[in-house]
Amino acid sequence: MQEDNKPPSERARIRRASERAHYDAETIHTIVDAAWLCHVAFACPDVLCLPTACWRVGDQLYIHGSNGSRMMKHLASGAPACVAITHLDGLVMARSAFSHSMNFRSVVIHGHFTEVADEAKPAVLAALMEHIAPGRARDSRPPDASELKATTVLGISLHEAAAKIRNWGPKDKEDDLALPFWAGVLPMREQHLPAISEPGHEGTLPSYVQTWAASPATASA
Amino acid sequence: MQEDNKPPSERARIRRASERAHYDAETIHTIVDAAWLCHVAFACPDVLCLPTACWRVGDQLYIHGSNGSRMMKHLASGAPACVAITHLDGLVMARSAFSHSMNFRSVVIHGHFTEVADEAKPAVLAALMEHIAPGRARDSRPPDASELKATTVLGISLHEAAAKIRNWGPKDKEDDLALPFWAGVLPMREQHLPAISEPGHEGTLPSYVQTWAASPATASA
Repeated sequence: MQEDNKPPSERARIRRASERAHYDAETIHTIVDAAWLCHVAFACPDVLCLPTACWRVGDQLYIHGSNGSRMMKHLASGAPACVAITHLDGLVMARSAFSHSMNFRSVVIHGHFTEVADEAKPAVLAALMEHIAPGRARDSRPPDASELKATTVLGISLHEAAAKIRNWGPKDKEDDLALPFWAGVLPMREQHLPAISEPGHEGTLPSYVQTWAASPATASA
Repeated sequence: MQEDNKPPSERARIRRASERAHYDAETIHTIVDAAWLCHVAFACPDVLCLPTACWRVGDQLYIHGSNGSRMMKHLASGAPACVAITHLDGLVMARSAFSHSMNFRSVVIHGHFTEVADEAKPAVLAALMEHIAPGRARDSRPPDASELKATTVLGISLHEAAAKIRNWGPKDKEDDLALPFWAGVLPMREQHLPAISEPGHEGTLPSYVQTWAASPATASA
């Protein structure tokens, strides 16, 4: 990734509203780390767009699934892929219909996935558990040999990626500023609701359960 | 769409966890209508996955953008496309790492877009405004002729689509049920925060602004 805000490749260059483009690793990683899932596009041979859980370790984004999954089998072959992560932060209401917009943070990743080797799988899957809830990797039964064997884990480099952020108010044309319509932002964010426990657990709740509903995801208006 | 929960086509058939599949129009429309944006996959010639605003009228999902947009130009040519909409409703924590899951509602649409003719554009774009906020189409300056001309509006049929819903607790293997780990769901939903008004507006706030922060999106745990 580039520190001087230049795209890492021509296909990763943001074409529309390029003033919203960011190509630095810190911005890309922050947006990726706030995501529970991504959308993966590939051609198999029909073009497909499927949601799946994702997590980051270093400069790799990981996804996983059953060995039998069409998506896993196809992507493990090294087929070209594009991955998008999008957080919607607000509806931007301008005085003119034309100038309405949305506030968002997105990352689009270009490249292809490679399969995580058997010996590296436990650590990468433990990182998924820690992404879901810090401490959860130790606070659950780890995958056994047959579960590990049944699971494909795929990583894609974050080096050929672009982030796009819009986090400001409406930008009406000069002539529209005096129109009598309300303008502003209707913000939104991910809200965490109280945990729903399965019966049978005794003792104190893990800290990630206790703090869940008190920890909304951060978002900018 | 099928009323007997049969897939509308082989490529739209859900392969993994097919007990979560729904092919009826009501389920598909409800999930689509709860979305502000979708992810669109297409090959141009590299496969791309891009987020964009979306809205439904009848059995069509619409997107829009500048005439100059690479995505708009490519999709207007009738290129194959796949569109995904995903709402994440909760993290599902099982006693075993392997049985962790997510609660979600998703729709995947297969087909191709067709361009909305000039004479139909104003009504379809007004429907976008009404999707954003009921009443907003009349409470903003409508697009003028040059704005309409600069905007491409594309529709894709919802007939070749599949919904997938998971909205239940963890399903551990029998042998894992007695493990001492907490299991349950960490639910989440879209939260609406108080509106941020631009300066200069006088009079009462429109009802869609007044009610925004009191109207979280509906979600199931």
